[in-house]
Amino acid sequence: MKKIILASKSIDRSELFNRIGVPFEMLASNIDEEKFKKKNSDPIILVKELAKAKLDFVKELVKKRGEDALIIAADTLVDLNGVIIGKAKNSEEAFKLLKTLNGKVHRLITGIAITETNDPKIINDYDITLVEFLTLSDAEIHNYIKTNEWEGRAGAYSINDKASLFISKINGSSSNVIGLPMHKIYEILKTDFKLNLFQK
Amino acid sequence: MKKIILASKSIDRSELFNRIGVPFEMLASNIDEEKFKKKNSDPIILVKELAKAKLDFVKELVKKRGEDALIIAADTLVDLNGVIIGKAKNSEEAFKLLKTLNGKVHRLITGIAITETNDPKIINDYDITLVEFLTLSDAEIHNYIKTNEWEGRAGAYSINDKASLFISKINGSSSNVIGLPMHKIYEILKTDFKLNLFQK
Repeated sequence: MKKIILASKSIDRSELFNRIGVPFEMLASNIDEEKFKKKNSDPIILVKELAKAKLDFVKELVKKRGEDALIIAADTLVDLNGVIIGKAKNSEEAFKLLKTLNGKVHRLITGIAITETNDPKIINDYDITLVEFLTLSDAEIHNYIKTNEWEGRAGAYSINDKASLFISKINGSSSNVIGLPMHKIYEILKTDFKLNLFQK
Repeated sequence: MKKIILASKSIDRSELFNRIGVPFEMLASNIDEEKFKKKNSDPIILVKELAKAKLDFVKELVKKRGEDALIIAADTLVDLNGVIIGKAKNSEEAFKLLKTLNGKVHRLITGIAITETNDPKIINDYDITLVEFLTLSDAEIHNYIKTNEWEGRAGAYSINDKASLFISKINGSSSNVIGLPMHKIYEILKTDFKLNLFQK
C-alpha cells in the first residue's frame, strides 16, 4: 500500500488511524490560521481552506524529501448558530466556550484535503455532524475542565473521553466529531486515488 | 466515591469507563441468555430483561462478598426491521450478519440496569442509536472479518475501530453503540443514586 501521511499533529486523528490498522506517518503543518479566519466568515469555506493550506504545506515538505505518498489534511471547528468556535487558549476560555455550548446543539465541521505527491489533483471536502450537549452546572463544567480534555480540541471537548457523559446525541459521522470523517476518507481514497483501505 | 462494579466482561465497556477516569471493577455474570431470547420477541423488552438478569446475578455475588457498591449491568443487541441480531459465533456467521446489515440502517439497542447492594431500588432503562452502513463488496466484508473485530460484539462490528470506515452516520448516543449510553448512566447515577460522575 502507498505510504500515507497525515498532515496533522492531533493525537485524536492519530488514534483514528491507529485503530483502522493502516500504517501512516504524522507530519505537522505550520500555517497562519488567523489569516484565513479573518478572510472567511463561512465555517464550511473556512475549514476547507484551512485543510487545503495544511495539505499544500505538507505536500511541499514531502516533495523536498523526494517521497511518493498520499497526504491527508484536516481542520475541525465548531459552529454554533453561525458563530465559529475553535480551540480554547486557556482554561478560562475553555470554560466560557463550554458554557456557550451547554444544553445546545452545535455543528461539528471537519474540512479535509487529500492529494498525492505525484498528482496535481486535490480533493477538498467536508463533513458535518450535529452534537447535542446535556445541561451541566458551572461546578460540573469546572470539574470537566480539570481533566484537560479541552486542550488542543475544537469546542474544548473529547467525545470519547469524559465528554461522553454530557453528549446525549449526535447526528452524522462519529469519527468526524473526533477529527476525521473516516467513511468519507475511505470513499475518496477508493474512488479518486484507487486505494482501498479494506485491502490487505 | 462509592465503589462502582460493571457487571460485564466486555472490553468495550471497560474502555468506556476507563476513559471517563472513574475507578471501577468488572465482574461478569453467568446467565442463560437463550432462555430470555426464547421468551421475548420485542428487542427493547429483551435487552432490558437481559440487563436486569445480569444485574441480579452480580448483585448476589457482591452481597456474598459483603461489599457496598453501585452495580451497572448492560446488554446490547442490533434490531434490523424487527429481526434481533446478537453476536456471531464464528467468522461465517459474522460474514452473513454483516452482509445483512450492509448498506442499511439498523437500531443499536443497549439495555441497562443499575442498583446498589444496600438498596432494593433498580433502574432498568434502554437507549437506541440508529446506525447507517455504507455498502461494501463481499471481498471488503471478508477483509473486515479478518480484523476479528466481529468477535464478542453485537452486530459483529466495532465502530471505533476499522468499522469507522463503513459507518457513514449515526443518530443518537455514540457511546451507546460501543455498549453503554454514558450520558444516560451519568443522569441516572445523579438523579437516582446521588452520585455525580463530575465530582472529584
